[in-house]
Amino acid sequence: MRIDHLGIAVASIDESLAFYRDALGLEVAGRETVEDQGVNVCMLPVGTSRVELLEPTGPETPVGKFLAKRGPGIHHICYRVDDIHAALARFKAAGARLIDDVPRVGAGGHLVAFVHPSATGGVLVEISQEAGPEHTAHPTQGDNS
Amino acid sequence: MRIDHLGIAVASIDESLAFYRDALGLEVAGRETVEDQGVNVCMLPVGTSRVELLEPTGPETPVGKFLAKRGPGIHHICYRVDDIHAALARFKAAGARLIDDVPRVGAGGHLVAFVHPSATGGVLVEISQEAGPEHTAHPTQGDNS
Repeated sequence: MRIDHLGIAVASIDESLAFYRDALGLEVAGRETVEDQGVNVCMLPVGTSRVELLEPTGPETPVGKFLAKRGPGIHHICYRVDDIHAALARFKAAGARLIDDVPRVGAGGHLVAFVHPSATGGVLVEISQEAGPEHTAHPTQGDNS
Repeated sequence: MRIDHLGIAVASIDESLAFYRDALGLEVAGRETVEDQGVNVCMLPVGTSRVELLEPTGPETPVGKFLAKRGPGIHHICYRVDDIHAALARFKAAGARLIDDVPRVGAGGHLVAFVHPSATGGVLVEISQEAGPEHTAHPTQGDNS
């Protein structure tokens, strides 16, 4: 397991690069807009993880509402796991409140699921599993959640 | 460079282990009390980084005040750098507001310095440099800060 990325909500990616790129010395590996989430993303690798600067495309987006309510800061932490289904089963057994009972397909075709901050010490936690031929989404056969 | 650790402020380490150890599957590598910071720390390695659960020893401690003001959540992110003096020089050149103008000795003999959240997208950032024979604190010869 490893930390996949830190999602940091910012009002402006360009202004935030003054710290993360110019001062801290990270390099920008890519930028993209995720239309269905209403967010511009700037990715800066750091070791085996990366920083993702998240800039909302408007105030009525998830990150826009986060910024209005809490100001800039850590939006979520993503952990990369080998088996997302096994991880979700452990979370359910532990009574953790889940946002996604079953994995969904996220950026890059990875399987992802979110865990509610109430279960994790106040941190919105994402888990992700690498996309691959052996890593396809299970059909939701009689989802009991 | 890499993410050294995530500092997560929690009311109770024992209760938080229900998620981080039992559900997420991290292992506890150690626990210690840092008396001068008034905090109990539980370290859980994850890849080349680690999660640090930070439980205050009382309400009038830095983490105790953080919890009272903001609730549980990410307290700080620590990046491991090769040369903390060069990093601080870059931060100053970029106009970043620093909490520590010069490095101080932190846990494990590492050199550490904190950067104010106003410079980093709302995140309290720590940088650290590994302790070692070639990594001793520079004498503060005519500190101009």
